[in-house]
Amino acid sequence: MFQGVVKRLCFAPNSSVSLYVRHFCKKSHRKLRISEAISSSSSSQLGVNITVQGWLRSVRPQKANIFLHVNDGSSLQSLQVVAGAELNNPLLTFGSAVEVSGVLKKSPHKTQPVELEADVIRVLGECNPVDFPFKIKKRHGLEYIRQFPHLRCRTNVFSSLLRIRSEATSAIHSYFKDNDFVQIHTPIITSNDCEGAGELFQVEPSSAHDGHFFSVPTFLTVSGQLHLEAMAGAFSKVYTFGPTFRAENSQSRRHLAEFYMVEAEISFTQSIEDLTKVMEDMFRSATEHVLAHCVEDVDLFHRHVTPGHRETVDGMLKKCFPVITYSEAVDILNRSSEQFAFPSDWGCDLKTEHEKYLVKHCGNVPVFVTDYPYDLKPFYARDNQDHPQHTAAAVDLLVPGVGELCGGSLREERLSVLRARLEELGLEDVNSWYLDLRRFGSVPHGGFGLGFERYLQCILGVDNIKDVIPFPRFSHSCVL
Amino acid sequence: MFQGVVKRLCFAPNSSVSLYVRHFCKKSHRKLRISEAISSSSSSQLGVNITVQGWLRSVRPQKANIFLHVNDGSSLQSLQVVAGAELNNPLLTFGSAVEVSGVLKKSPHKTQPVELEADVIRVLGECNPVDFPFKIKKRHGLEYIRQFPHLRCRTNVFSSLLRIRSEATSAIHSYFKDNDFVQIHTPIITSNDCEGAGELFQVEPSSAHDGHFFSVPTFLTVSGQLHLEAMAGAFSKVYTFGPTFRAENSQSRRHLAEFYMVEAEISFTQSIEDLTKVMEDMFRSATEHVLAHCVEDVDLFHRHVTPGHRETVDGMLKKCFPVITYSEAVDILNRSSEQFAFPSDWGCDLKTEHEKYLVKHCGNVPVFVTDYPYDLKPFYARDNQDHPQHTAAAVDLLVPGVGELCGGSLREERLSVLRARLEELGLEDVNSWYLDLRRFGSVPHGGFGLGFERYLQCILGVDNIKDVIPFPRFSHSCVL
Repeated sequence: MFQGVVKRLCFAPNSSVSLYVRHFCKKSHRKLRISEAISSSSSSQLGVNITVQGWLRSVRPQKANIFLHVNDGSSLQSLQVVAGAELNNPLLTFGSAVEVSGVLKKSPHKTQPVELEADVIRVLGECNPVDFPFKIKKRHGLEYIRQFPHLRCRTNVFSSLLRIRSEATSAIHSYFKDNDFVQIHTPIITSNDCEGAGELFQVEPSSAHDGHFFSVPTFLTVSGQLHLEAMAGAFSKVYTFGPTFRAENSQSRRHLAEFYMVEAEISFTQSIEDLTKVMEDMFRSATEHVLAHCVEDVDLFHRHVTPGHRETVDGMLKKCFPVITYSEAVDILNRSSEQFAFPSDWGCDLKTEHEKYLVKHCGNVPVFVTDYPYDLKPFYARDNQDHPQHTAAAVDLLVPGVGELCGGSLREERLSVLRARLEELGLEDVNSWYLDLRRFGSVPHGGFGLGFERYLQCILGVDNIKDVIPFPRFSHSCVL
Repeated sequence: MFQGVVKRLCFAPNSSVSLYVRHFCKKSHRKLRISEAISSSSSSQLGVNITVQGWLRSVRPQKANIFLHVNDGSSLQSLQVVAGAELNNPLLTFGSAVEVSGVLKKSPHKTQPVELEADVIRVLGECNPVDFPFKIKKRHGLEYIRQFPHLRCRTNVFSSLLRIRSEATSAIHSYFKDNDFVQIHTPIITSNDCEGAGELFQVEPSSAHDGHFFSVPTFLTVSGQLHLEAMAGAFSKVYTFGPTFRAENSQSRRHLAEFYMVEAEISFTQSIEDLTKVMEDMFRSATEHVLAHCVEDVDLFHRHVTPGHRETVDGMLKKCFPVITYSEAVDILNRSSEQFAFPSDWGCDLKTEHEKYLVKHCGNVPVFVTDYPYDLKPFYARDNQDHPQHTAAAVDLLVPGVGELCGGSLREERLSVLRARLEELGLEDVNSWYLDLRRFGSVPHGGFGLGFERYLQCILGVDNIKDVIPFPRFSHSCVL
């Protein structure tokens, strides 16, 4: 049984010895992650035989010794390995995978707390330095590494990005869990095409099929909001965090065809302030968590990729986010001496140039803009029933460098008002299930969506949205 | 500003007073969630004016009083409201939404710790009991409520399911975070069509477009594995948890066109035991968490929906999961007196009937089956290079009631072996990026996927997979 499969006894940290091991190999080195080895300078690991596995980030042969830096992705830090020159090997190249066994010692150098004195170095996977697109000691630009989506995680900058993205994801889930939200997996494939949110992707089986697979035309979701609203008829607080899609033919640095949205829906809320509070709390909580838990990785960005951005981030967290109405925003724009390419009259949608000006005007901090013209907002936005300037109870959060980060609104919960609006727009038939939500136990509610990639751009200062997602999809590009 | 929008001062639990409130309404009731009100019998809330908001689950008018049960989705429990008969109102019907203010008191009845003596009852949203598909005091079957995907969250059983699903999701993320896995958002739209995992969905913009939007044909992902493997070239442990898709024309109780998968990939692992350890640990950790944190909700299933299933679940957690090889499994099947519809000779794929028999044979607990015939497994499964029975280092986890819950394997990390295999299958061109992963710093690695809906079926005993996902998608059905 299991012939030909190499067996080993794995002393994984924090776990007991594997129950299913049937054979033991001869070595009994303790296996450590790189980050654990490095942080163990004051611990019981020193002087102990350990084995580490990872990829070479640097190779420095000297007369008597060879120095290697081994990284396993658990952090930005690499473990320095010192070996006698006799252990050198032409296959020890930048990017190759190695297993090193030896003794962990205090380092004589100030730059690292510990180093590994190697007894055995085994090359697990070669890496031809001529063919490998990343070169030793070279800091490659984000645009260059973007050409290699299957390999760019092996650069320092993109491995940092991915650890930050993972931690930010986790922080957002924690925020909602700590605040008693129920997580809902809203569907990806949907038969709703009624929001008019722009270009949709259609979904059909690739093989021939009589009629539609689902009997109706189906699309990739542009937002989980309507499905969350169904859930808001039974739960006071719900959220979803998943992929959404737009078939926009845009090559912008702020748009992707596939991107992640965090969406929340809160029942029994009757004010925009209840929504802005959740939006601001979530932003703060996630950002403070990331800054506290990804110190080195965030530093890499704030020092080397987007120098100076740390001050912007610190500034964002210092004060409460200001709130202005759309009408106030229009006044600010019209009073400014700035030359805008697009008009900023009352009733016009705010363009990116306007959003950026407003953010700057308010001191380069996130700004809530509330109560947009009724006619600019989708059918579900709640009618403020004001005049002469007719507005809806909607809110956007604008942030430095990015512009619109979040959009939200109270939802029209009044059956008669909603029905009249849908009739006006010719949408009453497609939304019959949605009207049911108002027919049976309707409650005042509202919610918002946050673009997760834009959030990462905002806290890291990264200019191009393609550099904050593992596998970017946009028009003319779907690599892998 | 904000004209026409009702304002209120919201004392949300665990939070400070909202910063943006500009107007105060006259009432100063403390607002409580239902679950907090109920658990407050021994706390400082008793005797205090509170306001609760929720949906009516029962209405019992008596001569002098009216009794209501109000639920807000925070738990299965409803708060009993007692009001003078003068507060009765024909709009107080099952399913309607209400806001009740009054004084929280110790209940004289043993069935609940507290009750709310109402001063004011306000109907927020009516619910016509004739049109509403769910009826008071009636326990509707899962099949009946499935007809109303936008409303079924308002039943006890489906709100319990959704809370359990949310908690299980969170428990799985916690397991991976606690064990130092980096979460990767693998893409939904992909240009990989080479796994041959069955029927694919194709993705194109709904509006006319010259050629493909992405310049290449694109599909919905059937698995994030290959993308995770790219990441396993830089991180020792990665995982993803997201939607996956199969355009299978199946109406089975175990298949959906859109379902959630948990997938993990572990580098520097050379044995199937390392994988089974993670699979078993994750299963135990998530299940124990759900049983401990969703006591009432799980009980609803184990008492009323799937009576007797609790013993099965407890039995699953008692012992280590047995491990048998495929060859041993075939021996067991061939020695049995059971009449199978499909052959169980060495080399045949195990069918559901075989999987169920093996689970039963092993004592109705989860069973790992390892080392499947090489020819049954996809190109990426690692060749055990054994003979005469040629196997791959692959493993499935079979569980009671469901059959296959997880599938995994060591991956073929040896460039020459992989290249030969791909050539044999005529797949060498489509997978050139995948070969790069073996060309540059390849490491022994492996991983697995778990079907999240099947996992919920397994722990709750729910027979039909459509009853454990908020919005089921299957052939001929994509409602909402």
